[in-house]
Amino acid sequence: MISHSCYATEPWRLRETELHLDVLAQSESVFSLANGHIGWRGNLEEGEPHGLPGSYLNGVHEVHPLPYAEAGYGYPESGQTLINVTDGKIIRLLVDDHPYDLRYGTLLAHERVLDFRTGLLGRTAEWESPDGRSVRIATQRLVSLTQRAVAAISYEVTALNGPATVALQSELVANEQLPDGSDDPRVAAVVESPLRAEEHFSEGTRLRLVHRTERSGLRVAAAADHLVTGPEGTSWTTGCEQDVSRLTVTASLAAGQRLRLVKFVAYGWSAQRSLPAVRDQVEGAVATAQSTGWDGLARAQRDYLDRFWSRADVEVDGNAELQQAVRFAQFHVLQSAARAEQRPLPAKGLTGTGYDGHSFWDTESYVLPVLTWTAPETVGPVLRWRHATLPAALERARQLGLAGAAFPWRTISGAECSAYWPAGTAAFHINADIADAVERYLAATGDEEFARGPGLELLVHTARLWHALGHRDADGAFHIDGVTGPDEYSALVRDNLYTNLMARRNLAAAARAALRCPDHAWRLGVDGAEAAGWRDAATHMAVPYSARFGVHEQSAGFTDRERWNFDATDGEHYPLLLHFPYFDLYRKQVVKQADLVLAMMACPDDFTPEQKAANFAYYEALTVRDSSLSACVQAVMAAETGHRRLAWAYLGEAALMDLENLENNTRDGLHMASLAGTWIALVYGLGGMRLHGDGEEAVLGFAPRLPEALARLAFTVLVRGCALRVEIRPDTVRYALADGEPLRVRHYGEELTLSAGEPVERGVPEGAEPQEPEQPAGRAPVDRLTGSDGQGVSCGSR
Amino acid sequence: MISHSCYATEPWRLRETELHLDVLAQSESVFSLANGHIGWRGNLEEGEPHGLPGSYLNGVHEVHPLPYAEAGYGYPESGQTLINVTDGKIIRLLVDDHPYDLRYGTLLAHERVLDFRTGLLGRTAEWESPDGRSVRIATQRLVSLTQRAVAAISYEVTALNGPATVALQSELVANEQLPDGSDDPRVAAVVESPLRAEEHFSEGTRLRLVHRTERSGLRVAAAADHLVTGPEGTSWTTGCEQDVSRLTVTASLAAGQRLRLVKFVAYGWSAQRSLPAVRDQVEGAVATAQSTGWDGLARAQRDYLDRFWSRADVEVDGNAELQQAVRFAQFHVLQSAARAEQRPLPAKGLTGTGYDGHSFWDTESYVLPVLTWTAPETVGPVLRWRHATLPAALERARQLGLAGAAFPWRTISGAECSAYWPAGTAAFHINADIADAVERYLAATGDEEFARGPGLELLVHTARLWHALGHRDADGAFHIDGVTGPDEYSALVRDNLYTNLMARRNLAAAARAALRCPDHAWRLGVDGAEAAGWRDAATHMAVPYSARFGVHEQSAGFTDRERWNFDATDGEHYPLLLHFPYFDLYRKQVVKQADLVLAMMACPDDFTPEQKAANFAYYEALTVRDSSLSACVQAVMAAETGHRRLAWAYLGEAALMDLENLENNTRDGLHMASLAGTWIALVYGLGGMRLHGDGEEAVLGFAPRLPEALARLAFTVLVRGCALRVEIRPDTVRYALADGEPLRVRHYGEELTLSAGEPVERGVPEGAEPQEPEQPAGRAPVDRLTGSDGQGVSCGSR
Repeated sequence: MISHSCYATEPWRLRETELHLDVLAQSESVFSLANGHIGWRGNLEEGEPHGLPGSYLNGVHEVHPLPYAEAGYGYPESGQTLINVTDGKIIRLLVDDHPYDLRYGTLLAHERVLDFRTGLLGRTAEWESPDGRSVRIATQRLVSLTQRAVAAISYEVTALNGPATVALQSELVANEQLPDGSDDPRVAAVVESPLRAEEHFSEGTRLRLVHRTERSGLRVAAAADHLVTGPEGTSWTTGCEQDVSRLTVTASLAAGQRLRLVKFVAYGWSAQRSLPAVRDQVEGAVATAQSTGWDGLARAQRDYLDRFWSRADVEVDGNAELQQAVRFAQFHVLQSAARAEQRPLPAKGLTGTGYDGHSFWDTESYVLPVLTWTAPETVGPVLRWRHATLPAALERARQLGLAGAAFPWRTISGAECSAYWPAGTAAFHINADIADAVERYLAATGDEEFARGPGLELLVHTARLWHALGHRDADGAFHIDGVTGPDEYSALVRDNLYTNLMARRNLAAAARAALRCPDHAWRLGVDGAEAAGWRDAATHMAVPYSARFGVHEQSAGFTDRERWNFDATDGEHYPLLLHFPYFDLYRKQVVKQADLVLAMMACPDDFTPEQKAANFAYYEALTVRDSSLSACVQAVMAAETGHRRLAWAYLGEAALMDLENLENNTRDGLHMASLAGTWIALVYGLGGMRLHGDGEEAVLGFAPRLPEALARLAFTVLVRGCALRVEIRPDTVRYALADGEPLRVRHYGEELTLSAGEPVERGVPEGAEPQEPEQPAGRAPVDRLTGSDGQGVSCGSR
Repeated sequence: MISHSCYATEPWRLRETELHLDVLAQSESVFSLANGHIGWRGNLEEGEPHGLPGSYLNGVHEVHPLPYAEAGYGYPESGQTLINVTDGKIIRLLVDDHPYDLRYGTLLAHERVLDFRTGLLGRTAEWESPDGRSVRIATQRLVSLTQRAVAAISYEVTALNGPATVALQSELVANEQLPDGSDDPRVAAVVESPLRAEEHFSEGTRLRLVHRTERSGLRVAAAADHLVTGPEGTSWTTGCEQDVSRLTVTASLAAGQRLRLVKFVAYGWSAQRSLPAVRDQVEGAVATAQSTGWDGLARAQRDYLDRFWSRADVEVDGNAELQQAVRFAQFHVLQSAARAEQRPLPAKGLTGTGYDGHSFWDTESYVLPVLTWTAPETVGPVLRWRHATLPAALERARQLGLAGAAFPWRTISGAECSAYWPAGTAAFHINADIADAVERYLAATGDEEFARGPGLELLVHTARLWHALGHRDADGAFHIDGVTGPDEYSALVRDNLYTNLMARRNLAAAARAALRCPDHAWRLGVDGAEAAGWRDAATHMAVPYSARFGVHEQSAGFTDRERWNFDATDGEHYPLLLHFPYFDLYRKQVVKQADLVLAMMACPDDFTPEQKAANFAYYEALTVRDSSLSACVQAVMAAETGHRRLAWAYLGEAALMDLENLENNTRDGLHMASLAGTWIALVYGLGGMRLHGDGEEAVLGFAPRLPEALARLAFTVLVRGCALRVEIRPDTVRYALADGEPLRVRHYGEELTLSAGEPVERGVPEGAEPQEPEQPAGRAPVDRLTGSDGQGVSCGSR
């Protein structure tokens, strides 16, 4: 029984050399194509076998009641779940009446390639039908980064012996039958057959289906048109029913003859627009795509990606696996956001239905940092999506008895969908994470219009939340009680350090922004007294510290808790949350994921180097990494505290999370945060990049140091539209500004002013090699980056 | 619109003088009859109109899946809910084809009387049918305290004008249609039609139905037989279907003529016994009842209650309402337990389906204290019920990663049914409450067999839980983290004072018991080291105290929290849990119900008088009494700290909780804990009774002081089978031991040795009148005991 997928290690491509049905769902996630608006999982065009068929439109969801055995005030009543929309990928193939299905006949050859530069997913295969007919298949697929509503497939079938009668059935299919189902019958009901038919159409080579979701009332239209190229006698017919619209092309192929079908698919959806409006929208999009043609779409895709890579590429010399992994990661992160345009970035992007397609703080705290420095044009729209959900967040805060905005822990539309409040509602830090993303975006871009508009509103309303949530004690300290930080193995604590430091920054940023745009702030009702209150709260923010242990506390009293008995916890008891009750996790010293360690990365100037070292060692011994959000942050802080071997190991874990299916759930979709974390671990970690200072004083600093395995690491960050290339070698770093105004940066604390075209080189100071901290028994990271290069094959689950 | 019920104030009866349909469900609860095994709500015999039809058998429940939108390890999968079993109360009356229904025709007179000495619920009514026929109804009903399986009804109808053709339809009805339903369709399904027919029978004057619950697999049988007395020509027939078995009696009554039906009903149920076995059981019970006859059953009822009142009566001179209320309370508490016999005591007794018929800590901490001192023979069986659920509690502890037993927060069968773990699983104090009830029972009875058997096991397994749950910190203090105390507006705290003190006592009691019964303890695996570990944990138990405020802390850090903004909280925002999220309640200083104040009552020797005074004042200002469990405890500690007026007001609130429907949910059943609290407020409160010392050193102490309103308070407590009568007047107290060995007691700390037949009198020392503490704005208790006596009418919702 093979339980892993095999990928060749190549710098710019992910190549699958064998097809293993038992990891089909995982490979469908890995080979997903998306543009932030449309997501197509890497399902085979023939439809079956499949792991999880998936076609998604960002924002298209159904709602269902959330059940509570014991209800409570303020519990969200309605859940939202991403639904599988009309599948436009299907092109079934019949060879002499045998359906092309790998489970029958013989698969003689199979290769799939995802090319990060062309943006195409290609497949070649040779198959012999049960009665001995052999065909070669060559497909290419794209989800257009330039035509937002469009996806396209080029499908070629060649007869290897003949004559063969082949038929291609190109379809739009709604309400595909899905494997498994939810435990909750009411959720299963809305997920399994979510679309109500409104219109079905087929004519010539054109197909169309229009459906509507029942409860959320979203209208979804899909249209397709085709180009058919085949030998003489090739013919086609169409037909349609409520849930399927189909073009059937038939041809008789002599040996060596070929039938080619190019399929242009367009999607549109709306909660408001009428059926004719949405119909015309997809018809227009498909016509435009057809006039661009397959070659034109593919060329535009390549151009788009060339532009992206010219500014965003990370070069890694010395480890081919890592080189591939970081490009794979950046490609998928870009795909999740490129054309999201005021829609959310779900935790799994548009690659699967994991987490119901919800967006979390992952967006602002993991994905946006990467995009802010490499593709900032995608970030404004995402933050504008958050801003567009402000009415729901204001209402939620009101419902909770607070002021300002309480952004949802998990959502699609903006309404809170978290049904477990200790790890949802109480995780207020998402508000500061959003504010932090605003500040980072402004520091990187100087987008004045955003700063005066949505940015200011986001800062003001999140600051108001903190001011209402906290309180001054008798000694004047500002405490935030009853919140849950990033570490989900603690909940409802006093003064979560991460939350407090991020809230402090949020409050200060709002006060600065109000001062900077007094008129706009005034319109939001901010007066001097309110801003002074924010500054005051920030100044007096409690920062829990244990003098006894000489470390900061993850929350007040954290270090007084009983330590988890790690020695008595076997490997099969991880993740702990599946084997131990929350009550026991919450009351002990055990950390699911970087929390205080994340605070040290996010707020670098709030800790001395000695504190960072002591804190890192203390929390390292408690952190079990039961979350995919942890390894990359631990990589960053391991690097900063001088633990190069450890940083390397954590970097490898982040980089291979999905390629090696480390959490055993890549089938449900890719871990966007961990993909982003690959870049973070490289740039923040090995590059030692941090944003120091606040607001207009913010300056990028670097403190690079390579692990032994690497000979060179080079990356580019975009600052106010200018590309800063940082090239790190074992002993030297070269900073090169491509264009624009001179730029201040720091190298190990030394201030440099870079001018365009005048690279500056600096040495890498000798680094101490402090004693390595210990992890909980059995939880030390493994060095996964074996570094095979060239055409080696990397296999998951080793 | 009348929104209250009107009861006459009489010392030994509850008399309803008008029938108000809008409070029908409430009066059905108040007029419930039960014997701990069978419960019949005070529904009219004619079946309709009704508020909530209710016939219950202790332990007969159905199970249903507990839904979780986000599941977690250790969450109970299955809920249990008390079901409405076969209704044996129904005797429908037709007068010339007009069904007797108060909503039609004219009710000329109506009176219902619940007599606490006879144990009978009587009703007299005169009704004129829509076509002018008048009849007088006189019914009496009992649920036998001496024949556990039996209930009976005497129904008389007299024609006031005539001739009238009357028909009586005496029925057994299963799956009665219930008003409303649960929000959860799966719960509603099992509650609304819970019984599957197995057998239906009728012959002569005999009726029988046997049903079975579908998931819990409980077989429920009901049988009835009748005596008919009527004028010549009276005749009857029977008939039955799956869910109804019916005797129809018809007679033609001239004016003044009477038809009488005596109905004997028997119930039986079993999870194991066969249909014939259960059928024969109810046939036998009904035959025995019939041979005893109505008069015999009624006489035995009276005898049983005479015995009870001779040992348990509390006499109150000076306030007739209170006199009535305490007897009403004691009567219902007795009814809930009398023949429960190793079944639970639900929080609502068998008077309604509130809280799904679950038992909580209310049993051990509120109801058993009353029964231990007044009807101790009922207490052993209840504790043996807890003991019988040990296997489930041991398994639950194992599931939670603990040792010993984790008793369920809410249950019918012994399995945890709480679906909200922060206020369920985490409320571990129930384990100490059970241990405390064991110790109290042993102190009161000296039941050696219980001590060596179930008592020891309960103490040992609960002590093991605490030892596993807590931990020693670096300074040696024993902390219990992550628990929820009695106050449900806090959760998951460190060192809840009540929990810690009760756990300390639990640990010490187990260690003592193991020493006392070393052989029995050895068989439970207790060795010297384990017992030493318990003593050690007890010795070092953390007791949170705030030096700054000079008060104990409800939990570690409690006094550092932000105070709830009571001034901004309107009256309509209570109870707070319906208007504010848990997250906000949990993190602020706001107390739902006595918690630390309960600790001062339960562990009187752990606080100095000064500490009690300071603590009471501090927490009084934070306590909103959103629970019916609070007022009685506040009454006790108000009395002890010298606040006589306040004690009186809280006593009134506890005493009138159900009679005046103060929590607006008496319709769902009576609040057994608050009923018990009436006695507690009088005896522990005004009588100042406490059990001091531990184990064999335990001694009862009294520190009585009457409020101004009372001229005399007398009560009896049973100590090792001997009746100690305490008679309190404004200046003196008289202690009289009726029989038995000499008894040590304390009077205001002075040790007295009482001998049978030699009463001792002592003076009541002058009491200081300290400054009254303040309650949260709008939450001060109202003086409800207006003290009308004689035939005055007390009306709810004034």
